Amino acid sequence: MDFSYDARTLELRERLLAFMDEYVHPAEAVLEEQLADPAREHWDIPPVVAELQAHARRLGLWNLFLPGEGGAGLTNLQYAPLAEITGRSPHLAPAALNCAAPDTGNMELLAQFADADQRKQWLEPLLNAEIRSAFAMTEPEVASSDASNIATRIERDGDEYVVNGRKWYITGAMNPACKIFIVMGKTDPAAEPHRQQSMILVPRDTPGVTVRRGMRVFGYDDADHGGHAEITFEDVRVPAGNLIGEEGSGFAIAQARLGPGRIHHCMRAIGIAERALELMCRRTLERVAFGRPLAEQGVVQDWIAESRVRIEQARLLVLKTAWLMDTVGNRGAHTEIQAIKIATPLTVEWILDKAVQAYGAAGVSQDTPLAQLWAGNRTLRLADGPDEVHKRSLARRELKRHREVGR
Amino acid sequence: MDFSYDARTLELRERLLAFMDEYVHPAEAVLEEQLADPAREHWDIPPVVAELQAHARRLGLWNLFLPGEGGAGLTNLQYAPLAEITGRSPHLAPAALNCAAPDTGNMELLAQFADADQRKQWLEPLLNAEIRSAFAMTEPEVASSDASNIATRIERDGDEYVVNGRKWYITGAMNPACKIFIVMGKTDPAAEPHRQQSMILVPRDTPGVTVRRGMRVFGYDDADHGGHAEITFEDVRVPAGNLIGEEGSGFAIAQARLGPGRIHHCMRAIGIAERALELMCRRTLERVAFGRPLAEQGVVQDWIAESRVRIEQARLLVLKTAWLMDTVGNRGAHTEIQAIKIATPLTVEWILDKAVQAYGAAGVSQDTPLAQLWAGNRTLRLADGPDEVHKRSLARRELKRHREVGR
Amino acid sequence: MDFSYDARTLELRERLLAFMDEYVHPAEAVLEEQLADPAREHWDIPPVVAELQAHARRLGLWNLFLPGEGGAGLTNLQYAPLAEITGRSPHLAPAALNCAAPDTGNMELLAQFADADQRKQWLEPLLNAEIRSAFAMTEPEVASSDASNIATRIERDGDEYVVNGRKWYITGAMNPACKIFIVMGKTDPAAEPHRQQSMILVPRDTPGVTVRRGMRVFGYDDADHGGHAEITFEDVRVPAGNLIGEEGSGFAIAQARLGPGRIHHCMRAIGIAERALELMCRRTLERVAFGRPLAEQGVVQDWIAESRVRIEQARLLVLKTAWLMDTVGNRGAHTEIQAIKIATPLTVEWILDKAVQAYGAAGVSQDTPLAQLWAGNRTLRLADGPDEVHKRSLARRELKRHREVGR
Amino acid sequence: MDFSYDARTLELRERLLAFMDEYVHPAEAVLEEQLADPAREHWDIPPVVAELQAHARRLGLWNLFLPGEGGAGLTNLQYAPLAEITGRSPHLAPAALNCAAPDTGNMELLAQFADADQRKQWLEPLLNAEIRSAFAMTEPEVASSDASNIATRIERDGDEYVVNGRKWYITGAMNPACKIFIVMGKTDPAAEPHRQQSMILVPRDTPGVTVRRGMRVFGYDDADHGGHAEITFEDVRVPAGNLIGEEGSGFAIAQARLGPGRIHHCMRAIGIAERALELMCRRTLERVAFGRPLAEQGVVQDWIAESRVRIEQARLLVLKTAWLMDTVGNRGAHTEIQAIKIATPLTVEWILDKAVQAYGAAGVSQDTPLAQLWAGNRTLRLADGPDEVHKRSLARRELKRHREVGR
Repeated sequence: MDFSYDARTLELRERLLAFMDEYVHPAEAVLEEQLADPAREHWDIPPVVAELQAHARRLGLWNLFLPGEGGAGLTNLQYAPLAEITGRSPHLAPAALNCAAPDTGNMELLAQFADADQRKQWLEPLLNAEIRSAFAMTEPEVASSDASNIATRIERDGDEYVVNGRKWYITGAMNPACKIFIVMGKTDPAAEPHRQQSMILVPRDTPGVTVRRGMRVFGYDDADHGGHAEITFEDVRVPAGNLIGEEGSGFAIAQARLGPGRIHHCMRAIGIAERALELMCRRTLERVAFGRPLAEQGVVQDWIAESRVRIEQARLLVLKTAWLMDTVGNRGAHTEIQAIKIATPLTVEWILDKAVQAYGAAGVSQDTPLAQLWAGNRTLRLADGPDEVHKRSLARRELKRHREVGR
Repeated sequence: MDFSYDARTLELRERLLAFMDEYVHPAEAVLEEQLADPAREHWDIPPVVAELQAHARRLGLWNLFLPGEGGAGLTNLQYAPLAEITGRSPHLAPAALNCAAPDTGNMELLAQFADADQRKQWLEPLLNAEIRSAFAMTEPEVASSDASNIATRIERDGDEYVVNGRKWYITGAMNPACKIFIVMGKTDPAAEPHRQQSMILVPRDTPGVTVRRGMRVFGYDDADHGGHAEITFEDVRVPAGNLIGEEGSGFAIAQARLGPGRIHHCMRAIGIAERALELMCRRTLERVAFGRPLAEQGVVQDWIAESRVRIEQARLLVLKTAWLMDTVGNRGAHTEIQAIKIATPLTVEWILDKAVQAYGAAGVSQDTPLAQLWAGNRTLRLADGPDEVHKRSLARRELKRHREVGR
Repeated sequence: MDFSYDARTLELRERLLAFMDEYVHPAEAVLEEQLADPAREHWDIPPVVAELQAHARRLGLWNLFLPGEGGAGLTNLQYAPLAEITGRSPHLAPAALNCAAPDTGNMELLAQFADADQRKQWLEPLLNAEIRSAFAMTEPEVASSDASNIATRIERDGDEYVVNGRKWYITGAMNPACKIFIVMGKTDPAAEPHRQQSMILVPRDTPGVTVRRGMRVFGYDDADHGGHAEITFEDVRVPAGNLIGEEGSGFAIAQARLGPGRIHHCMRAIGIAERALELMCRRTLERVAFGRPLAEQGVVQDWIAESRVRIEQARLLVLKTAWLMDTVGNRGAHTEIQAIKIATPLTVEWILDKAVQAYGAAGVSQDTPLAQLWAGNRTLRLADGPDEVHKRSLARRELKRHREVGR
Repeated sequence: MDFSYDARTLELRERLLAFMDEYVHPAEAVLEEQLADPAREHWDIPPVVAELQAHARRLGLWNLFLPGEGGAGLTNLQYAPLAEITGRSPHLAPAALNCAAPDTGNMELLAQFADADQRKQWLEPLLNAEIRSAFAMTEPEVASSDASNIATRIERDGDEYVVNGRKWYITGAMNPACKIFIVMGKTDPAAEPHRQQSMILVPRDTPGVTVRRGMRVFGYDDADHGGHAEITFEDVRVPAGNLIGEEGSGFAIAQARLGPGRIHHCMRAIGIAERALELMCRRTLERVAFGRPLAEQGVVQDWIAESRVRIEQARLLVLKTAWLMDTVGNRGAHTEIQAIKIATPLTVEWILDKAVQAYGAAGVSQDTPLAQLWAGNRTLRLADGPDEVHKRSLARRELKRHREVGR
C-alpha cells in the first residue's frame, strides 16, 4: 500500500497547477465580464474558453481524461488528482483542458462503442474541441433512474430509426456549438428490462429536434457551459448507421459510461470543497466581529476542522475507487462507485454550506462563487439517480454477501 | 394552557383560506406568465399583485400585521397563524394583504417611532400600498450583525443630515415604486456602542442616492418583489426632520423592529414547509419507480414523518413566542425570539431539501417552487445576523442564569 | 391560545418543587449509599424510597398521575408539568410520588378495564404502594412491536387459563415486592390480527412462573427500581376471572395504556434534559482549560443554545399532546402521541451526549448521573416499538390525508 | 499509489483470520462463562486469555504491534490491518496477541525511552505477558487534556522521587497482575508549559499507592481487562532511576506515545464497526416484522449502505495515517493523527447505534456485544482529550497554512 502519487501524476500536477495560476485563475474575472456583456449571445460559450484551450493544448494539457490512444493515456488513478485541480475553477478549467462533462463521457463512449465512421464524424471534432456534444437520457415524465421507465422510442423504419420523446436537463445542449446528441430510448419495450434500450446519434439540426428551453438549477441557467436543455424529438429520422453498438445495448453502454464519470465528478467536487475551505479560511481570518476575527470563534474552527477531516476521507475513497477501476474493472468497483456518489456530494455540500455561512450575505450572492457551486453540487445528489436508489442497491449487495456467508 | 385558536383567529383563518383558494393560488400561474413577459420592466411589481390587493382590501384582509389603530388590531398570537397561511404562496399572498416584508417592519417602525409628519408622508401611503419602502441596514464591507461595525455615517450639517455609505441586500429597493429608504448609520461613533446609531428617512430620488445593482440569492434576483439592491449614499442631504426618533436611538429602534418580524418570517416559513410537505406527499404518491410509488419507500416515509414532527415543534415554539411578546413584551421573549430564528429556518430547509430530492431534477428547476423557496429560506440563517451570533447570545443568557443560581 | 399553566398546576408545581428541594435531592446521596451497601438484598427497593413516599403522601403529592377518583383527578395537561419535575431526579421522585412506570400504566389500566374484584385485589394495594406490578408484553424471540407476532399463549381450560411463553425486559419484576404481572398473550391466534390478544393477571408466586435473570441496559441492571426481568411462564394456571376485560381485547387495552404513558415518559425525559443542561452549564462554568472556562468556548455555547432551543420545542409538543388527549381523546391525538415518542428521546439523547462530553471521563462514570440517564433514555427509542415503526405509521396517515385531498 | 496490502500483511492477515476462526471466536462463550463464575476474583483476567496467548505465541502472532527488535518488526501500515481484525473480538483478540492497550503503548514507550535497566525490569516481562502495566495520566480534578493542568507532583528528594497526586480511569490497573504504573506528573511547575512534566515508573506495591475503586463506563466495569482504576499516590517514594528519560521530557514522551496508539484504537474500532454491520445484516435478514424481514425495510437498507460508505472512508484515512507515520514520522502525520481521532469513533458510534436499534431490546442487553462495544467506543471521543480540543488544534493549523499563503 502506497499513498504517494506516481511520477507522471506528480509531473502533470505540477504542470497543471502552473497553468491554473498563470492562465485559469486570472481568466475568472474575464469570464465574469464576458458573461455580463449585454451584447453576447446568451448560450454561446464565452471566448475566453477557446483562448484557454489554445494554451492548454500547447502545454500538453489536453484530453487528459481519455485513457486510450486519442487521449493522454492516463489511468483513472493518474487522472483523478488532475480532475481535482480543475475543480478549483470548475467553470473554466475543465473546459480549458477539453475535460468537461458531458463531453468527456461522450468521447469515452464513442471511443469505446462507436464504429469507425461514427468516431471519424463525431469523436475527432470533439477531441479537437471543434464541436460540443450532449447526452440525452433524463426524461421529465418518469423516474428515469429506473431505466425501465424510459419512454422515448427509437423505432426502426427501413434504413432509418425514428426517434420520439421528450428529454430535459440535457447539459450543454443550449450551446449552438453542441452539434450532436447521444439519445437513449427504447428499441424493444418487450425485451427483458435491460435489453430494451439503445443509444443513437442525433445531430442537432435534424428535423423534428426542438431545443425548447433552458432548465434552471436554483436560479442559475449555467449559460457559461451550454445550460441544461429541454428537447423534444418528434418523428426524428436518422440513418440506421447512427445507432451506437447494437440494438438493446443501451443500458450496458450507459453503465459503462458511468464509472469514470463518477470519478471525474467526485474529484472535481473535492477540488470545489478545497476551494471553499480556502475561501472560508481567508474570509474568517479577515472578518472581524465582536472584537476578533471570525477565525478565532470556536464554531468556525469546528467547521474548518470538520471540513478538513471530511475532505481527506472523501478523497481517499475516490482515489481507491479509481484504483479499483484500473485494476479490477468497473464491475469489481461497483460498491465503491456507488459509495463515492453517495458520500462525496454530501460532504462537499456540507462544506459549501459552512463557507456560505462564513461569508454571510456575500455567500449567497454573485460576488463569491459559493452559491453557484453549491447549486451545481446539489444536483449531484439526484443526477444519475437519486442517492436513495444507490444506497438501496449498495445495501442489497451488502446483505447478499452476509446472506451467503450466513449459510 | 389552551392550544386552540380564539374566535377571531378562526374567523380570519377561514376568510383567508377562502381568499387563498379563490384568488391567490389561481394567480400563481398568472404571476409566472407576467414575469416571463419579455416586454415587462424587469423590476416592476407584476400587475397581478395590485389586482389581488384590491380583492384583499375589499374582503377586509388588509394590514392584518399591524397591531395598532392603522391596522387590524390583532395580537401577535392572532396574526401568526394568518402569516403561516400566506407562506403557502409566499410570492403573492403577503403582498396581496399588504403584509409583505420589509414593508411590514417599516410600517411598524413608523407607527411606533415616527413623528406625525413622517407618518403622514410615508406611513399613510404605505398602509394604502401606494408606495413601497426599504430598510437599509446591511453593509458589504463589515460584519453588520455586530451593530458597532456599521460604517455608514449620518452627520449633522445645519438643518440637514448628510449620509455617506454603502448598503446591500436592501430588499425591495430595485422596485421603482419603492420610494423611501430607512437608513441606519452612525451619528456619533464616539458614543457608547449602542448609542452610536441613528435611523433616517432617505427618499429614493434624493441626489447622491444610487441604486447600483440587484444582488442575487443562489441565482435568483427576486424581481417579483423588488429584488435586493446594492445602494450607495454619497453626500446625500436630507432635512434634519427626517431623523426617526432622536440621535443615538437607531440600535434600540432596530431591536424593537426585530421581534414581530421574526414571528412573521418564521410563520411564513412554516407555511412554506407545509406546502413543501404537501408537494412531497403528492409527488411520491404519483411517481412510480422500481414497481411502486415512491411514497411506499421506507426512506420517503421517514422524510414525511420527520417533516411532520419537526413542523409541529417549530410552529408551537413560534406561537408561544408570539404569546410571550403579547403578554410580557419583546424583552421577556428575548430567548424565544432568538430560538425561533435559530430553529425555524433549519427545520424548513431540511424539509425543502427532502422535497427537492423527492422531485429529482424537477425539484431544482423552475417548474416547481421548491428551489426558489429553498434559496429564500436559506438566507434566513444569515439575515439579521448569522445563527451563530444568536446562539452565542442565547447561551450566554442561559449560562448567566445558572451562574446566578449557582451562587 | 394560552401558554400559561392553570392555577392548580401552578400550585402543585410549587408544592412539588419544594418537596424536591427539601426531600428528594438530599435523598439522592442516601440512595447511592444504600445501593452500595454490601449487605443489601440486590433487587429490593432501597428503604429511602418508602421514607420519601411517606412524606409525599402526607403532603398530598400522591398518585398525581391518576385522572379518576382513586387519584388526584388531574388532566394530562395538569399532570405533565409535574412529571417533568420528577424527571429531574428520575431514580427517586417518580417512585416517591407513587407515579413511577410501569405501575402508573398498570394502575390506569386496572382502573379503566379491571372488574371490581380485580381492582380490589390489585389496584388498591398499588395505589397505597403496598405492592408493585409489572407489565409483561415484550418477548425475546419476536419483533413484538408488531402485536401479531406475540407468541405467548393464554388458553382456556375449564375455569382456568393456562399461560405459556417467555417475556423479557419486564421492568420492575426483579423486585420481590412486585407481586402481580399483567401478561399479554394470544387467546385466539385464528382471530383477526387485533382480536387475537388478551391480558391476564398472573400473581408472581403462581407455579410455573420463573423470574430468570435481570436484563441489562448498557451495563446497568437498574436494581434501584426492580430491574428488567426475563420471565418464563410454563403451564401457569390462573382462574378464568383473572382475565382483564374480555377475550380478544388485549390489543385495544394495550393501545389505551400507551397514550398517557408516553406523556409521562416524555415529560420526565424533558426533566432529565433540563437537569443535564443545568449540569453542563455548571461544569463548563467551573472547568478551566487553555486559560478560560469551558463555558466561554464557542462550541460549548453552541451546545447550550441548541439544548435550550430543542428542549423548548419538545416540551411544547408534549404539552399540546396532553391537551389533545384531554380534549379530543387518544384517537384524536394519535399523530402527536407518535410524534413525541419520535422526537423527545432523540432530543434528550443529544443533550445528554453533550453533557457527557462536557464532563469528560466523569460523564461516563458513576460519579455523575449522566451516563445512566443516557442509557435509560436510549431505550425509549426502541421501547413500545422502535421509532422507525412509529414513523412509518405516522407517514402513512399523513400520506392518506394528502391522497384524500388530492382526489 | 497502490491500495493493495503487501505480501507480509496478506500472509499475516490470513494467519490471523485463521486464528480468529479457530481459537478466538469459539473462546467468546468461554469468556462469558468465566466472567459469570461466582467464584472468580472479580478483577483477575479470566484464564481463557492465557490459553489464547499460548496459541498465539506458538503461531507467531505475538507482539505484532512492536516495530523494533523485540517485536514483529512491522510498520504501522502493516500492523494496522491486523489490529482491525482483532477489533472483531475486542475483549479477547488484542489480549491474546499481547497487543492490547494500554500495554502496547507502554511497551513502545519503554522500548523507545527507557534505559537498559528499566527495559530489563519491566519491558521484558511485558513482552512475555508475565505482567501487565498501566499508564497513569488522567486526573479527576482538572481538564487534563491540557497538560499544563496536571496537578500530580513528582519531586526530587535525594536519591528518590516523591510522587503525590490522584489519577483515575487508569485502564487495566484493577487487575492485580498489573505490576507497574507509568505516572505522569510535574517535576518543575515553573518551567515552560511543555517542560514541566516528567514520567516515572511506580511499582504497584510501593507504599503510598492506593488503588481505590473501579471507575465505570456506562455501567460496565470492564473487569475482563483490568477495569479503570482510581489511584491515589501519597508520598510515594521511588528510586531516582525510575524516571523515564530526563526531567521535563514527559510531555514529549506522551506525544510520541499517542501516534501509534491512535492507529491501533482506530483500526480496532473499525473492526468493531465491521462486526456491528455484520450483526445488523444477519439480524435484519432473520427478523420479520409486518410481513417481511427487516432487511427489506428501506430505512434499514439506508443504515446498511451508510455504514458501508462510512467504514470505507474511515479505514482509508487510518491507513493513510499509518503510512504517513511510517514515511514522514509522527510530526508530518500530525493533522491526520488528529483527523482519525475525530472521525473514527463518531463513525463507529453511528453504526453501533443503528445495530442496537436493529436488535431492539437485545441490542442494549448483555446478550449481544453491541451495547458494551458502544460504551467503550463512546469513551474514545473524550479519551486523550475530547474531540473538541483536537478539532481546535487541527483548525488552527489549517488556518495558519492559509494565513501564510495569504501573505
